[in-house]
Amino acid sequence: MTSPTPLQAGATVADLGEFGLIAELVQRFEQGPAVYVGPGDDAAVLRAPKGHVVVSTDLLVENRHFRRDWATATDVGHRAAAQNISDVNAMGGRATALTVGLALPADLPAQWAVDLAEGIAAEAALVGASVIGGDITRGSEIVVAITVLGECEVAPVLRSGARAGDVLAIAGRQGWAAAGLAVLGRGFRSPRAVVVAHQRPEPPYDAGPAAAKAGATAMIDVSDGLVADLGHLAAGSGVAIDVRSDAFTLDDPLVAVGAALGVEPLQFVLGGGEDHPLVATFPAGTELPEPFRPIGSVTAGEGVTVDGEIYEGDPGWTHF
Amino acid sequence: MTSPTPLQAGATVADLGEFGLIAELVQRFEQGPAVYVGPGDDAAVLRAPKGHVVVSTDLLVENRHFRRDWATATDVGHRAAAQNISDVNAMGGRATALTVGLALPADLPAQWAVDLAEGIAAEAALVGASVIGGDITRGSEIVVAITVLGECEVAPVLRSGARAGDVLAIAGRQGWAAAGLAVLGRGFRSPRAVVVAHQRPEPPYDAGPAAAKAGATAMIDVSDGLVADLGHLAAGSGVAIDVRSDAFTLDDPLVAVGAALGVEPLQFVLGGGEDHPLVATFPAGTELPEPFRPIGSVTAGEGVTVDGEIYEGDPGWTHF
Repeated sequence: MTSPTPLQAGATVADLGEFGLIAELVQRFEQGPAVYVGPGDDAAVLRAPKGHVVVSTDLLVENRHFRRDWATATDVGHRAAAQNISDVNAMGGRATALTVGLALPADLPAQWAVDLAEGIAAEAALVGASVIGGDITRGSEIVVAITVLGECEVAPVLRSGARAGDVLAIAGRQGWAAAGLAVLGRGFRSPRAVVVAHQRPEPPYDAGPAAAKAGATAMIDVSDGLVADLGHLAAGSGVAIDVRSDAFTLDDPLVAVGAALGVEPLQFVLGGGEDHPLVATFPAGTELPEPFRPIGSVTAGEGVTVDGEIYEGDPGWTHF
Repeated sequence: MTSPTPLQAGATVADLGEFGLIAELVQRFEQGPAVYVGPGDDAAVLRAPKGHVVVSTDLLVENRHFRRDWATATDVGHRAAAQNISDVNAMGGRATALTVGLALPADLPAQWAVDLAEGIAAEAALVGASVIGGDITRGSEIVVAITVLGECEVAPVLRSGARAGDVLAIAGRQGWAAAGLAVLGRGFRSPRAVVVAHQRPEPPYDAGPAAAKAGATAMIDVSDGLVADLGHLAAGSGVAIDVRSDAFTLDDPLVAVGAALGVEPLQFVLGGGEDHPLVATFPAGTELPEPFRPIGSVTAGEGVTVDGEIYEGDPGWTHF
């Protein structure tokens, strides 16, 4: 990859034009060995050695999923890519390629789009995935539409396979992004650790394939909220799930934010989304793969309980 | 597939909510045999027997790519799917699956979204492709972000393989959608044939794989404009292309619209996009596969000429 040229200071998206902007972004997208045809043709072509292709699409809309005064464009790029790659992770797969569709206001600084692209490419590079194509058009607000492709070494892990008697386990941080969002929402920028957790989640990308190989029966990533997403898993599997609240260490930043905002810190853990940890169920007796740790159990029935009780807090985010 | 239930009259997107709307749309997406996991999990999983996956993403934004008073939601769905599937066609591939990302205003009638989904699904069904996933979120304007996946039986046909001496050929209608857009732009609804051509393009979906098998050296679909898109092919291949204007029959509706609007009808053919015909180059002497017909030639040099002259008209659409 050639070293990208700096943009003319103050140039807008309209100044560069569609093809000028595409050229700027494409030189920032390194193409890995799985790419047969990268950006620039009618379509991209990916080498797919496995018999299954995993696909997921997610949209981020400005002022709904991100605010330009709360996160840099690079942060938004990292987060947009992370939430998509996490969906492949939650199937037990590995992401191989992304496409990026952008609707951009004409007066948006072109540097913002370039920084966004660099964030997407950097996050994709964490798992060895390439940005292989996309589309740019004018819109009245910023929309980032990412589609991720991936592959599975073993059969994909669905939401529907949990069985009574299984152990419920989690891999990755939970509650930090929600605490960060709460802090930003009150006009603060600290504790910095939770703000950064909101701006750039760090999903446990190796945990998905590890869970699949270890025989996970069901899996989902926590994007909307722990209780909300476990609700999807319970419904998909036709089981009941109980979460033990004492399985969660309430990390110092969560306690600090809770104290400052007058919020029970466990609410960040149970209701928070956007950290993108994985929650998976395993047959009893399974040696849990790193970094999974047990947080509850699966029983016959339906719905999600916390310590045997219906959870009364906010279960998570809804889009309308 | 169960028969979809009718919506409550007057319900908005916000009335149904994210999951309610998703449930309405998903029951309209029939899943073909290539789908291993359809909508409803973290990601979809597609069976991919071939070693290559073709991928393309396109966005449509309200009032930029479509107007709700010029086209029904079903039309918009057909067109959004068609322009994506056409990109796979232009690689010589066949579309197998689509994902659909939607940003929708909360007060949008839910019926509009349902009709859009039915249009997308119906167009996809023309090539045997399934809608296997997507995302819905709130936005201040409608954005339809489609990603299409496909497969190639033979090596994909790129934009870069045209050689001096090749024959230039086209498959499909050209200029009709542009004439339709011109008519709509002046507030008219007829001739109906060109208005419908704009609302629902009919790309020649069998022509792409046929061209690939016949040994096409380069191929592109006309989405921005004939001269503009041939310019991409010429630049990609490092050749010059000459189009013979007398190779085009000026169909009656184009002549009628030209006369009514005071426009030379050949301009619709040379500058118009969105009909999504394929233009391809073949080695001299190749028996052109149906429905390709010769329209010009490839020579050493660069750029696109019409009857040996630089084209002075509008070459096509730009996005900023």
